[in-house]
Amino acid sequence: MSELATPVALIDEPTVLRNVRRVADAARARGIAVRPHAKTHKSVELALLQVEHGAAGITVAKLSEAEALAAGGIDDLFVCYPLVERTKIERLIALAGRVRISTIVESEPQARQLAEAARAAGLELEVTVDVDTGLGRVGVALGPGLEALVRLVERLDGLRLRGLSTHEGFVYGIADAAERRARLRESLLAFVEAGRSLNLATISAGATPTLFESMEIAGLTEVRPGNYVFYDAMQVALGAAALEDCALSVLATVVSVRSSSRAIIDAGSKVLSADSGVHGLSLLSGYGIVLQRPDIQVTGLSEEHGWLSLNPGGPGVRVGERLRIIPNHACAAMANFDRAYLCKNESTLREIAITARGAFS
Amino acid sequence: MSELATPVALIDEPTVLRNVRRVADAARARGIAVRPHAKTHKSVELALLQVEHGAAGITVAKLSEAEALAAGGIDDLFVCYPLVERTKIERLIALAGRVRISTIVESEPQARQLAEAARAAGLELEVTVDVDTGLGRVGVALGPGLEALVRLVERLDGLRLRGLSTHEGFVYGIADAAERRARLRESLLAFVEAGRSLNLATISAGATPTLFESMEIAGLTEVRPGNYVFYDAMQVALGAAALEDCALSVLATVVSVRSSSRAIIDAGSKVLSADSGVHGLSLLSGYGIVLQRPDIQVTGLSEEHGWLSLNPGGPGVRVGERLRIIPNHACAAMANFDRAYLCKNESTLREIAITARGAFS
Repeated sequence: MSELATPVALIDEPTVLRNVRRVADAARARGIAVRPHAKTHKSVELALLQVEHGAAGITVAKLSEAEALAAGGIDDLFVCYPLVERTKIERLIALAGRVRISTIVESEPQARQLAEAARAAGLELEVTVDVDTGLGRVGVALGPGLEALVRLVERLDGLRLRGLSTHEGFVYGIADAAERRARLRESLLAFVEAGRSLNLATISAGATPTLFESMEIAGLTEVRPGNYVFYDAMQVALGAAALEDCALSVLATVVSVRSSSRAIIDAGSKVLSADSGVHGLSLLSGYGIVLQRPDIQVTGLSEEHGWLSLNPGGPGVRVGERLRIIPNHACAAMANFDRAYLCKNESTLREIAITARGAFS
Repeated sequence: MSELATPVALIDEPTVLRNVRRVADAARARGIAVRPHAKTHKSVELALLQVEHGAAGITVAKLSEAEALAAGGIDDLFVCYPLVERTKIERLIALAGRVRISTIVESEPQARQLAEAARAAGLELEVTVDVDTGLGRVGVALGPGLEALVRLVERLDGLRLRGLSTHEGFVYGIADAAERRARLRESLLAFVEAGRSLNLATISAGATPTLFESMEIAGLTEVRPGNYVFYDAMQVALGAAALEDCALSVLATVVSVRSSSRAIIDAGSKVLSADSGVHGLSLLSGYGIVLQRPDIQVTGLSEEHGWLSLNPGGPGVRVGERLRIIPNHACAAMANFDRAYLCKNESTLREIAITARGAFS
């Protein structure tokens, strides 16, 4: 590890394995399928690890992520994003001819468009009807509109209805843990009830902070956590993970020591990301957690520099010293890197490709 | 352009040319050298354009950026970053054997380390002594410490002193334009006076928001603007650019229309960046400017989704519609892309590589 040029992304392999197994075991015990979201790691290698540990398939946000992971050997992909353009739907259909593909529908015109393209290709495309359970982003609200769309999808040749999906991302915006759990429970109970009353086989939800609570909701059949593979400072602040669960860190070097209270590292917003929260989260004050150095705060980032605030009575840092920083948001930090190093404690094991880095479209 | 899969980065070529020429002409008229910072575009093609328009050389933040640009044909590179590790200094020396290289020193141990490595390689390494003119990031404060370091560098075999450098990035944190100009002037006058009193040939500063004001300071010999090649919503908010000066945009597609006041696009923080300011800037309320649609605000970003707020009495948007968004911070947005498309108005001209994307170390 001491030979790696910094800043560089490190993934602690034993921690990833523990995170993946913990969720796989909990889901298996409850008869729930896990379809992890690959937006966090964007890596064929880690997606294969999740599949080895029982994942039913892999979720992605973008079609180009699905294409990259399919090329790497992932054969069951859920594109959890509303595809609305002809060219993208054609790419989806092309992919569906090679691997198992499913996606979401959230409106009648979009359902008809997907169905028509699938019929033209002689395929049946698996879809979920996406439900907005409180985030207000994409998806249909519970109620008659949802039922009408479900019935339409059931009728349309070219589509096969897998069930309902939602992302309960609104939980990130609720600082109080008890309120977060209560609102999650209320929201998922109504979601599951809608799926049951419509006699649907798959009822799928997914958000890491409330993953284990969501698996206690009877009737939920699938979870799609992404961040859980790495966790990060945001999940620690939310109480969803302990620091020792955090698997992704950025190794950085102290390049300048200004005073007993201020130093500069070679990792800035272009690697750690300026992302200081998700969906209204406001629990974070700094830009990451410095491992084994609670006396150091990352108080600011410019593009290529991180600003450290040191405890003036503490041990300080010296120029050339290396620090490992758990980013605020692992999904945002990992997305900056073309490669990362799997490691075990202080030893580097091997390099892996962040296969779908830059796969936005 | 209508055939590009979104989200995608577009660079308006006539606007880039105008931006590059305007600065080149103003600097030439004052006898000031321009050494543009490539951290903004990270592209060999745009660096060559800057050199064609009279740039004295190219500035970079990271050694790997210098390596990538040197491989692409840029033959004069200033690595404006404190290199402190043996392996990086060896890489710098290797590069200095192939193209003209300079870097910064900001401490006595670092100066000695660079000098020793240069001597061992039989080279003389050009350096500036870096000065902190108010940002508090790297560099030496004005005063006896600066003079001592300058005299040391002049004495050390292996180093050749080019002069003084600074980045007056503190101006980003000053919302009031008159105060910003006043503090810039005060700071740069003292900086130039220090360089003159030490009889130094090069006195180099660089920050886009105050670029033209800085060129009015008699005695400044070099400017190193980065952002000016593209500008962005931040520079518009600072009054440093007009909207028509902004050359980088992200083309996005509306993927979901929730209501007359809310829609979702396929560009989120992974492409537009969550960066909402630099060095304390707090002038921005949204996440970019939607071109030709002042009725639309980008009010939020999740990783792969942008949240639009629409004027309910306005024309609205339809699913599938495309929008061009000027990002808050062009340097942060461009750094997400492996490639971009040069365009002219609505026509795509050709693809260019963002050569040094991911070059962090």
